[in-house]
Amino acid sequence: MDKEAIKTLLVSLQNGQIGVDEALNKLKHLPYEDIEFAKIDHHRQLRGGIAEVIFGEGKKTEDAIEIARRIYNMSGRVLITRASKEIYDGLHIDGARYYPTSRLIEAGEGRKKIGRIVVVSAGTADIPVSEEAAVTASFLSSSVETLYDVGVAGLHRLLSNVGVFEGANVVIVAAGMEGALPSVVGSLIDKPIIAVPTSVGYGTSLGGLTPLFAMLNSCVPGIAVMNIDNGFGAGCLAHKINILAVHD
Amino acid sequence: MDKEAIKTLLVSLQNGQIGVDEALNKLKHLPYEDIEFAKIDHHRQLRGGIAEVIFGEGKKTEDAIEIARRIYNMSGRVLITRASKEIYDGLHIDGARYYPTSRLIEAGEGRKKIGRIVVVSAGTADIPVSEEAAVTASFLSSSVETLYDVGVAGLHRLLSNVGVFEGANVVIVAAGMEGALPSVVGSLIDKPIIAVPTSVGYGTSLGGLTPLFAMLNSCVPGIAVMNIDNGFGAGCLAHKINILAVHD
Amino acid sequence: MDKEAIKTLLVSLQNGQIGVDEALNKLKHLPYEDIEFAKIDHHRQLRGGIAEVIFGEGKKTEDAIEIARRIYNMSGRVLITRASKEIYDGLHIDGARYYPTSRLIEAGEGRKKIGRIVVVSAGTADIPVSEEAAVTASFLSSSVETLYDVGVAGLHRLLSNVGVFEGANVVIVAAGMEGALPSVVGSLIDKPIIAVPTSVGYGTSLGGLTPLFAMLNSCVPGIAVMNIDNGFGAGCLAHKINILAVHD
Amino acid sequence: MDKEAIKTLLVSLQNGQIGVDEALNKLKHLPYEDIEFAKIDHHRQLRGGIAEVIFGEGKKTEDAIEIARRIYNMSGRVLITRASKEIYDGLHIDGARYYPTSRLIEAGEGRKKIGRIVVVSAGTADIPVSEEAAVTASFLSSSVETLYDVGVAGLHRLLSNVGVFEGANVVIVAAGMEGALPSVVGSLIDKPIIAVPTSVGYGTSLGGLTPLFAMLNSCVPGIAVMNIDNGFGAGCLAHKINILAVHD
Amino acid sequence: MDKEAIKTLLVSLQNGQIGVDEALNKLKHLPYEDIEFAKIDHHRQLRGGIAEVIFGEGKKTEDAIEIARRIYNMSGRVLITRASKEIYDGLHIDGARYYPTSRLIEAGEGRKKIGRIVVVSAGTADIPVSEEAAVTASFLSSSVETLYDVGVAGLHRLLSNVGVFEGANVVIVAAGMEGALPSVVGSLIDKPIIAVPTSVGYGTSLGGLTPLFAMLNSCVPGIAVMNIDNGFGAGCLAHKINILAVHD
Amino acid sequence: MDKEAIKTLLVSLQNGQIGVDEALNKLKHLPYEDIEFAKIDHHRQLRGGIAEVIFGEGKKTEDAIEIARRIYNMSGRVLITRASKEIYDGLHIDGARYYPTSRLIEAGEGRKKIGRIVVVSAGTADIPVSEEAAVTASFLSSSVETLYDVGVAGLHRLLSNVGVFEGANVVIVAAGMEGALPSVVGSLIDKPIIAVPTSVGYGTSLGGLTPLFAMLNSCVPGIAVMNIDNGFGAGCLAHKINILAVHD
Amino acid sequence: MDKEAIKTLLVSLQNGQIGVDEALNKLKHLPYEDIEFAKIDHHRQLRGGIAEVIFGEGKKTEDAIEIARRIYNMSGRVLITRASKEIYDGLHIDGARYYPTSRLIEAGEGRKKIGRIVVVSAGTADIPVSEEAAVTASFLSSSVETLYDVGVAGLHRLLSNVGVFEGANVVIVAAGMEGALPSVVGSLIDKPIIAVPTSVGYGTSLGGLTPLFAMLNSCVPGIAVMNIDNGFGAGCLAHKINILAVHD
Amino acid sequence: MDKEAIKTLLVSLQNGQIGVDEALNKLKHLPYEDIEFAKIDHHRQLRGGIAEVIFGEGKKTEDAIEIARRIYNMSGRVLITRASKEIYDGLHIDGARYYPTSRLIEAGEGRKKIGRIVVVSAGTADIPVSEEAAVTASFLSSSVETLYDVGVAGLHRLLSNVGVFEGANVVIVAAGMEGALPSVVGSLIDKPIIAVPTSVGYGTSLGGLTPLFAMLNSCVPGIAVMNIDNGFGAGCLAHKINILAVHD
Repeated sequence: MDKEAIKTLLVSLQNGQIGVDEALNKLKHLPYEDIEFAKIDHHRQLRGGIAEVIFGEGKKTEDAIEIARRIYNMSGRVLITRASKEIYDGLHIDGARYYPTSRLIEAGEGRKKIGRIVVVSAGTADIPVSEEAAVTASFLSSSVETLYDVGVAGLHRLLSNVGVFEGANVVIVAAGMEGALPSVVGSLIDKPIIAVPTSVGYGTSLGGLTPLFAMLNSCVPGIAVMNIDNGFGAGCLAHKINILAVHD
Repeated sequence: MDKEAIKTLLVSLQNGQIGVDEALNKLKHLPYEDIEFAKIDHHRQLRGGIAEVIFGEGKKTEDAIEIARRIYNMSGRVLITRASKEIYDGLHIDGARYYPTSRLIEAGEGRKKIGRIVVVSAGTADIPVSEEAAVTASFLSSSVETLYDVGVAGLHRLLSNVGVFEGANVVIVAAGMEGALPSVVGSLIDKPIIAVPTSVGYGTSLGGLTPLFAMLNSCVPGIAVMNIDNGFGAGCLAHKINILAVHD
Repeated sequence: MDKEAIKTLLVSLQNGQIGVDEALNKLKHLPYEDIEFAKIDHHRQLRGGIAEVIFGEGKKTEDAIEIARRIYNMSGRVLITRASKEIYDGLHIDGARYYPTSRLIEAGEGRKKIGRIVVVSAGTADIPVSEEAAVTASFLSSSVETLYDVGVAGLHRLLSNVGVFEGANVVIVAAGMEGALPSVVGSLIDKPIIAVPTSVGYGTSLGGLTPLFAMLNSCVPGIAVMNIDNGFGAGCLAHKINILAVHD
Repeated sequence: MDKEAIKTLLVSLQNGQIGVDEALNKLKHLPYEDIEFAKIDHHRQLRGGIAEVIFGEGKKTEDAIEIARRIYNMSGRVLITRASKEIYDGLHIDGARYYPTSRLIEAGEGRKKIGRIVVVSAGTADIPVSEEAAVTASFLSSSVETLYDVGVAGLHRLLSNVGVFEGANVVIVAAGMEGALPSVVGSLIDKPIIAVPTSVGYGTSLGGLTPLFAMLNSCVPGIAVMNIDNGFGAGCLAHKINILAVHD
Repeated sequence: MDKEAIKTLLVSLQNGQIGVDEALNKLKHLPYEDIEFAKIDHHRQLRGGIAEVIFGEGKKTEDAIEIARRIYNMSGRVLITRASKEIYDGLHIDGARYYPTSRLIEAGEGRKKIGRIVVVSAGTADIPVSEEAAVTASFLSSSVETLYDVGVAGLHRLLSNVGVFEGANVVIVAAGMEGALPSVVGSLIDKPIIAVPTSVGYGTSLGGLTPLFAMLNSCVPGIAVMNIDNGFGAGCLAHKINILAVHD
Repeated sequence: MDKEAIKTLLVSLQNGQIGVDEALNKLKHLPYEDIEFAKIDHHRQLRGGIAEVIFGEGKKTEDAIEIARRIYNMSGRVLITRASKEIYDGLHIDGARYYPTSRLIEAGEGRKKIGRIVVVSAGTADIPVSEEAAVTASFLSSSVETLYDVGVAGLHRLLSNVGVFEGANVVIVAAGMEGALPSVVGSLIDKPIIAVPTSVGYGTSLGGLTPLFAMLNSCVPGIAVMNIDNGFGAGCLAHKINILAVHD
Repeated sequence: MDKEAIKTLLVSLQNGQIGVDEALNKLKHLPYEDIEFAKIDHHRQLRGGIAEVIFGEGKKTEDAIEIARRIYNMSGRVLITRASKEIYDGLHIDGARYYPTSRLIEAGEGRKKIGRIVVVSAGTADIPVSEEAAVTASFLSSSVETLYDVGVAGLHRLLSNVGVFEGANVVIVAAGMEGALPSVVGSLIDKPIIAVPTSVGYGTSLGGLTPLFAMLNSCVPGIAVMNIDNGFGAGCLAHKINILAVHD
Repeated sequence: MDKEAIKTLLVSLQNGQIGVDEALNKLKHLPYEDIEFAKIDHHRQLRGGIAEVIFGEGKKTEDAIEIARRIYNMSGRVLITRASKEIYDGLHIDGARYYPTSRLIEAGEGRKKIGRIVVVSAGTADIPVSEEAAVTASFLSSSVETLYDVGVAGLHRLLSNVGVFEGANVVIVAAGMEGALPSVVGSLIDKPIIAVPTSVGYGTSLGGLTPLFAMLNSCVPGIAVMNIDNGFGAGCLAHKINILAVHD
């Protein structure tokens, strides 16, 4: 459309209907986005569809449902994070799935899963955040495997499952309390690690600030850190890294 | 070596020199590392040599020089981060280079550079951290391009250089003060972004905590965040991601 | 009245009813406010009526209603911020309007709107604070235009609407999370910008402290910053600036 | 130049040297800035020259001098904030002035001063920040008056000088310690107030965070708050507001 | 009683029933408190009865009632702070009074009030804390006058009521938000001032930490500061100071 | 079992069914834990059964019950911390006890109590945490005595009970507010002291951070500090220390 | 003087030289302070001369000397807090005393000491702050006794010196680290206590915030708390309380 | 001596020189400490001599030397922590040893070492704190073994040295950065663990607060935590625990 507007303008110039100065002036006042759109369009969308995800928290039930339906109708699939059961009950999309632990709603046909992401969690209380990461990455078409409850207090459980990391392009590690697990995983493998601090804990866990700061200070160099409880962000980043390994 | 020790033990058993119980007992008391080494050895080293890097801060000059020489003699190359000029002056390795801005010392022959990493910085004061990231990734064998002083206050400078991101597998963005640049870069490209908050600023920049928290809260999903001023970590992570795109 | 008291005293002196010492003594013991009032009275009120605004939060419903009615009866108009629906239901003033999103109640005839204020918000979740600012400034007689949901993650939306700033005397920008929008707006226009951090976000948004600190550290010089979620304050300041441009 | 490039392209189309599709294609690939520049150029610069100001802190002496000279040669004037005496000594610009208290260097002919800004400081220790604000606003061509050492502990000094606010379009108030002065000034006048917290104090002044938070919580609605010790920002904002009152 | 035990022991020694060594040994093993009691007993109780006060918060209703009744039966009076209406309803003491604003229950006959304490509050929202201070000091037998809603935003109200401070031995000032009122009162009078920060405010008032820190940093030397919302402590301290002026 | 797997493998080698290389290879791929288990097994369990404790908070009622029953069936005893009454009601284990104050459920036959631990609390509000510590240590088989409500404000109560510490191997001190009690106890006895800060208090007690920091800064050297409200941890540590004194 | 100006005005009115309206108008425009001065003059100065004290920190040596000399010449005495030896060396006032520990300079004849203040310190490192308090109160004419190094770790030293408190009107307690001493002193005496947290300590003493918060949370009701290291403020407040007990 | 004073008094009573009432009265006014001393004397000193340790930081060189000599002369041994080389140079005690890394001075003949304490450190930068702990515990007569540089990033180094823990009664673990090592050690052994956070790190290590909080939140129950860099405290506590295992 906008491209058409520019084309029409150029044709008018070609036809002599307008002069160069007038054309130049009109170009300046065309809506900004149109020109810019032509140039960076292919940069703006993640392959796999982050645009198809809705952040459900704080949205009214009916608004979330309305937005989800529009996206679903347009693209055939939708993911809602931090979603209530009420949204799910009102959504009425065939085959939609609700994950009560991570409060996710997923609808639409799955895509072919590619690559390999491993999601590790320290304690059972970290599973909601881990599952948010896992389902998000899977929705975006990454193949995901999970390994839960392998925290540092029971180090042998992690060490005896070290084989799960084989073939992984990237590993997500969710942990609350002292947030030590990403460092330990980082001492075992050499692939990119995404650490997600969780708000699991009390007192000086400071709502997750303590594992966050611990992860940022890991003695293992180069661990990527997310905001507290941000499983969704971890899933997005893991997918972006995973597809690099597959496609390029 | 340790593998040999186990083999010798097994041969003794095969030869009847020792019995099953004695073999079992000896296996239990072998140095732990040896057995574990056989299993996870290939996981423990980053391709490209993070083991060849020394963290110079807080080390005495003579200690840093001694450690650096040993590594250089063993592997033919070494990188020292947060290094003083004194270390460089005492190092006496032919062809060693000192980067005064980022306080890095690099020695040894360069490796073939692969892939493509772009390092962006908001202000000129963020260049030391950016350079630490860039030299680190390059030392690890990644191909790196830099784009400095394109902060949000002069948005047009960033927008007119958007072409530099083409072909990049991963982008490092260093910024202090309000730490807004990673979000803006993230609105323009879809590759993994590594945000490095810097301690540039005063008052409520809180020594870099403010850009750190801002980056963790980016409205662009999936930005990887590093500790304050941790250019080295950013370079390591970027390299790990970059080689995924190249090798796999 | 108080002016009259002083005048009466001076007349008594003039008439010889009292002597100079007695007059001096009485002057000293007159209520302080009266004398001071004569001097700074014209400084104390904002043109347009901040005295007609009630802060509803924490007030009992019946108290808020009673105060609102008194103000309305005296001045013909009233604005209640952070007001509950219960206050509105009990107010019984003809033509009163309730804004559920920003929890404002406005009553009384509107005044002629003057000048031009633009209110911009980053995300839909920032709209309550933005609306509080917009309705406040409008109530105070400023002409207000709004532009919502133009956050940094979709930079093109802001850039394609840059025309809205034309003619504005002052721009209010409300944003939560990383609080980057005021810097980006500040790179586009040269009028005074009022930044309002919102408590939108989780984890390290620290209830709005992160966008607050980010805004105070903007690389764009001279951005005015408000307390977290303080849309009312932003509306007041914007109005004060706007009328400067109109009246003087 | 870039405008010329577009013009040349349009002339080629007009002349039939290229077709519409080719013109359209070339337009898409022109440097972004050029097109964008034509549209938002007039937004990007503050009237009065914020572009002519250098932030001296952290810059090497020789770099600061070099940049300052370039700006001076281009525009005939320059202001350096947080500048050392060394920079001044090496600058060698006739008529340059050094302000040791506020560490400012100002060079070039003064502009006609317009409007009226009043800068108030609580204690003598707040004068460096106040002076930074005053000289900045004056450099930008605002007429500035100062009133120092009128803190809350000696309330009568402020009250007996209330006349100084007459005719002011905007008032800057710098205060450390408990940061109460902006509220008191705000109870006396109705013009926009810009509060600058200073790092003056010890213990729980927390390096200026306490007056900052106090100012953000002022019971006087609509006070604009700056970062700690940010006299420069206050001067910029005050000037932006002051010229609104004069020009429009 | 314990005094009697020692006396009995000494009599036994005097009578020759026991020897010196046995007496010495028994003295060593007497309960510690008894000896210490004789010495510091008169130090341990505040004149006027802080021992007759119960902190109601967190106590179960039935426990609070039981403790209150015991104290009342023993001493004829009792004060319960942070008390629920349920406690009051179950207390069944004739003439007991419930203060819903400050959540206090007072029972027993009043004592003669002595001296003069003035309690000042900044806003109406600070009245609960102010009333807690006023009722506490009055219960302890101090004469108390209150002056509410004289915050800094309406400075004239405070200045026109400055006469209330005449004759006061000590002044309590309760304020939330920016906590500026104690400094302003301190610039007007020279008697001891007790500042009580309240949790009134939002955002950067940080639940009362901001007025607390502001009061600790007052430019008026020697202001006594209490914990946030601690009206009870302020009442106790004010009473201790007030009786010094009366009795000694 | 795993030991058996290795033995079987060695026998196969001895029998010539497999060769040395095959044996070596299989050893490498045996589950990690098995080998490691043989070596550090005896390190992994506390004598007395921390493995028999469940952290109830955040667990669903049915899950907590299920886990508790399994543990009880296996070991004949179980302790659930931070447990709801609902869990207790659904547990149906004969002789199980519920402690409403500390929200603990204990089931199974008691063990012989050994050594001596004293648990001291400052105020009545600290009793829930103290009881959690006391019951935990007792469950682990330590002999425990408690001394409650001996805070610093009534120093004589503590001094007159100093005899209780006689024979104690370790003392747990729980205190909120200013957290001074561990220092005072530490000035009286020379046995290891474990300080547990509680969240009792308001305002600047900062949810227990203030007593925590105070305890970490005790002028008595060598006090062990726990996380806020972590009575369970204190009980575990006290038991570990207590059994050292008894067994070794 | 100002009183004279008003008198002259009133005489002019009495003489018929001016009319009532003119008199009224001139009254309005007289310097504010003059009128206000007549009313609150006697409130503004502390008996004993806080106006004769200079805060030396941050002042240039020559400025501090100049101000000190003026005050000394006018009033015959001066106290400089946080003063360097350089100031003392340049002051040249006969009989001036320098206290290197507390960095105070005192000059002029001493006044008659009245009442009784006791200053207690926890450790030897708290003596500088204690001495600042003691010398300040003494300078203001209070009789002061000190008791140093009686911290909680050696409780018996405090208990064996409890007699020193006899006859004291007010007690100042300076302590760093865990700040427990004021609570312990408060359990022994019933006079007003002024607690001064010091910055003595490391790690989680947080530069004195920990003892500050501990003191604000004392379980002894009604302890007055000062800013960190603010011995001067403690001395002022103690003197204000002490003279109440003496004069009234 | 004091015991003698009481004995004399009792003899006087026995002899009839004084009566019971006079004896009773004199007992009340005897120095407090004397009586109290008789009762709790044996509680007040740690076996092994913490009274023989001086905290050197902040003490003037000559004072530290003087105190150290007195202690040495009285007890034949002394330990000075955080001591400068200047103190050592001026001490002139034969056989005194200076530890430059941990800044300790130890003088006097060593005692027989008993029990077994293991001190573990994560990185080489944590050695100063570790050494302070080790030398302190050794000075107090505990047998100490150290294991340095076994941080989580090289997990295999710790795992291959797990044998060192055998026979230890207590383990001290010093770590900075993310502070994960105590949790990992705690997953391997069941003896009391004392965690010492160090200030090693930058950015969000927050001067050691991050490892401190991480250690307090360890998923391994019952880890004792010390203040940041408090190796001395760790040594004291470890010794107290160690001697329990040996003596009792």
